[in-house]
Amino acid sequence: MSIEFSGTYTDLYQIAMGQSFFRDGQHQQSAVFDYFFRRLPFGGGYTVFAGLEPLLEALEAWHFSAEEIDYLATLNFDSDYLEFLRNLRFSGAIFAPLEGEIVFPAAPILRVESTVVQAQLIETLLLNILNYSSLIATKAARMREMAGDAILSEFGLRRAPGPGGVLATRAAIVGGFDSTSNVYAAQRYGIRAEGTMAHAFIQWHGDELAAFRTFANAHPNNTTLLVDTYDTLGSGIPNAITVGKEMQSRGQQLRAIRLDSGDLAFYARRARAMLDDAGLSEVKIAVSNQLDEFIIRSLRQQGAPIDIFGVGTSLVTGQPDAALDGVYKLACANDQPRIKISDNLAKTTLPGRKQTLRFLSPDGKFAGFDAVVFEKETVPARVIHPFEAHKVMDLASGLNTSELLQPVMRNGERLRSAPDLATIRSYCAERLALLPPEYRRFEYPHQYKVGISPAVQALREDLRKNQNSTRTSP
Amino acid sequence: MSIEFSGTYTDLYQIAMGQSFFRDGQHQQSAVFDYFFRRLPFGGGYTVFAGLEPLLEALEAWHFSAEEIDYLATLNFDSDYLEFLRNLRFSGAIFAPLEGEIVFPAAPILRVESTVVQAQLIETLLLNILNYSSLIATKAARMREMAGDAILSEFGLRRAPGPGGVLATRAAIVGGFDSTSNVYAAQRYGIRAEGTMAHAFIQWHGDELAAFRTFANAHPNNTTLLVDTYDTLGSGIPNAITVGKEMQSRGQQLRAIRLDSGDLAFYARRARAMLDDAGLSEVKIAVSNQLDEFIIRSLRQQGAPIDIFGVGTSLVTGQPDAALDGVYKLACANDQPRIKISDNLAKTTLPGRKQTLRFLSPDGKFAGFDAVVFEKETVPARVIHPFEAHKVMDLASGLNTSELLQPVMRNGERLRSAPDLATIRSYCAERLALLPPEYRRFEYPHQYKVGISPAVQALREDLRKNQNSTRTSP
Repeated sequence: MSIEFSGTYTDLYQIAMGQSFFRDGQHQQSAVFDYFFRRLPFGGGYTVFAGLEPLLEALEAWHFSAEEIDYLATLNFDSDYLEFLRNLRFSGAIFAPLEGEIVFPAAPILRVESTVVQAQLIETLLLNILNYSSLIATKAARMREMAGDAILSEFGLRRAPGPGGVLATRAAIVGGFDSTSNVYAAQRYGIRAEGTMAHAFIQWHGDELAAFRTFANAHPNNTTLLVDTYDTLGSGIPNAITVGKEMQSRGQQLRAIRLDSGDLAFYARRARAMLDDAGLSEVKIAVSNQLDEFIIRSLRQQGAPIDIFGVGTSLVTGQPDAALDGVYKLACANDQPRIKISDNLAKTTLPGRKQTLRFLSPDGKFAGFDAVVFEKETVPARVIHPFEAHKVMDLASGLNTSELLQPVMRNGERLRSAPDLATIRSYCAERLALLPPEYRRFEYPHQYKVGISPAVQALREDLRKNQNSTRTSP
Repeated sequence: MSIEFSGTYTDLYQIAMGQSFFRDGQHQQSAVFDYFFRRLPFGGGYTVFAGLEPLLEALEAWHFSAEEIDYLATLNFDSDYLEFLRNLRFSGAIFAPLEGEIVFPAAPILRVESTVVQAQLIETLLLNILNYSSLIATKAARMREMAGDAILSEFGLRRAPGPGGVLATRAAIVGGFDSTSNVYAAQRYGIRAEGTMAHAFIQWHGDELAAFRTFANAHPNNTTLLVDTYDTLGSGIPNAITVGKEMQSRGQQLRAIRLDSGDLAFYARRARAMLDDAGLSEVKIAVSNQLDEFIIRSLRQQGAPIDIFGVGTSLVTGQPDAALDGVYKLACANDQPRIKISDNLAKTTLPGRKQTLRFLSPDGKFAGFDAVVFEKETVPARVIHPFEAHKVMDLASGLNTSELLQPVMRNGERLRSAPDLATIRSYCAERLALLPPEYRRFEYPHQYKVGISPAVQALREDLRKNQNSTRTSP
């Protein structure tokens, strides 16, 4: 079984709308769509933007295969439209921050400019990759924040949402993880693969010491021993010490022991003391078992001497949110600004070709607010809350700004080669370090403000009134 | 980008343990592993077993590619072991119920018999496919239970966990969904593809009536009109009625309207009345917008005239659980029964080659209890709670039983061709209908009991005592 990000990796309605545009001869007209989300995940103060590079890779290869066209024919699509789809490639432009950027609700974080038919057909693929990757990278960053300089290793493939686990591993690294147990993802993305041993290995041998010895013999350069199969303090750690000393006498080095049950703080402390007393102070302590960012924080606050955290389910499922609510909305049709109106202003979209400005404090840190402006607009003196028009904020003059949306793809081709994952991971860490701690804390984080320029606000109001008066009423 | 269920789609420790078995010459020895889970998802009373056919398909194709072997060489695995892996295929046996069976905690629901190295290497793949598929199929079945004879359509790809969305769509059908918006999954699995239109299509045209007309012209046989872009009652439904009557006059048929916001019960009722008054009583009403099984239940209980429910995020993410806690545990090594012991009896495994018996009432329904027995054991007269040994239940004599674990693969080959998804879906519905309603309700469902035979209990106790006395202590 293999899964590919091909042309049919989309919702049927995209293909159906495409046929309607095609029948009307409008399919090659230009469209601008914005990607943004409305709610920060995990009750936190930020989101890590992730999934851009897999998306660009998918867009470069994007097409309908002959088999897909044949299948669509069985759904009664018109044959001339299907011939058009057969030859269709993505030839549009993408504007986005670098992957790993820190982003906030309501502001566009990616813009697509292409023909309307292309923009619709890629929507589902784009949302599928970016929503999940950003959710998992954000979860990973929260764990990184709490883990200090400990190693974070992603162990989640067995509880991951099927092949989604491969994207989850990648996103975990973007957010600050160091390594993974997922060999497939490690190979594909150049991640350090990490492995220990399973309880089954010790059950198989029955004798714990014999199991440890045989594993150490097979892996003299990378042995981590799982010590909680029978009795952590009574046999597991003592047997690991025996093997650790045997390895020492052969000039080898036991890398780590792993604790997978019980009170991890208590056992880690006891294990550290026992290892140190035995002259094995360089042997690391790894822990696993239903970890999340709150348990990692608690273990660190208790001073538990843990070197490696192995995290699975809560990371790859993005619990408790499980989805980022990113959406993709039409901003221009044929260079004319468009909005979707709603009684709820929070669901009325922002019209036109826009830029998201990040304001920087004099010390170079993020100033605590972004502004949504038109593409060529000068930095506004004040911004307005996107949904509560009575909230206006004057912007101090002289602040530096940077434009988050930069061209990354034109004519369907990337403008630079893909950075490696380590580079993306470093960029994320660098950007997170620019976000003051009050936005990074878990409990009631300070709200990063996103405002819209008076010009954007005025156009939205104009279009809203206009749309209300001109739409066809029966 | 494509993702394949290849040899490296596993945790590194499986490959590392494999090398240890290989170095010791034990890798070809026989192992038996059980797959089971400990906790029912969603606070419900049952789990739908799903993912079997994708797993069997993956196992038939399972191998390490040349590139994967080259990659493993960079991780310093031994070259003779890598040569062994290069030629390795899965040649074991799988015992399982048919996909779509209703299953309960603690009882084995799949058994693997193979060489120990194969059994370890496939563990992660097996858990990855079965855990996620069973979670989503169970969620889907809960929605089916509440939706009555309405159409359930899966709309979740945009919020799905990356390519996991393809397995999610498949699992949704197993659990009772009718159709999907996911064209890729529809093609692969022979599912009915379902599509409507997006708000962007109406925004694009600006004029709602014109947008409806152009869509109906392009799709005379399958038009669903989205009516909530501007004003559901004031323009959306009236414009849809205009187009529906125009279609009628051309001998065509408007299929449905879709409501995607606001109070769905209120709008559905109003829409039904307006459509009926206009002589369009055959036009269906579809709804979407953050639906789950509780909202579907509520809408049905209110008598909302809804024909089609489109469900996305809550389904494909399996909220609020997000993972099924299925595990894979060694039961025999070289035909010798093995257990993993734990201070917590619930985490002590059941030894030996076992069968799960389903007891049936005289009326043919599920009797409310399963028994875990040895493979050749006769039906026991009493069973014991798996973790609370003081709880014993006498079994009425004369009840029919069926053996849930049947051979589905031997020597790495399926014993029958894969049933199509519609057959699996029907089987699931048939089996669910045999589960009395008290196990299917949402609030404090009655607990389906799983007991172990006195023989299984006795062997576990023997091994527990034996293991405690013979394991190597330092």
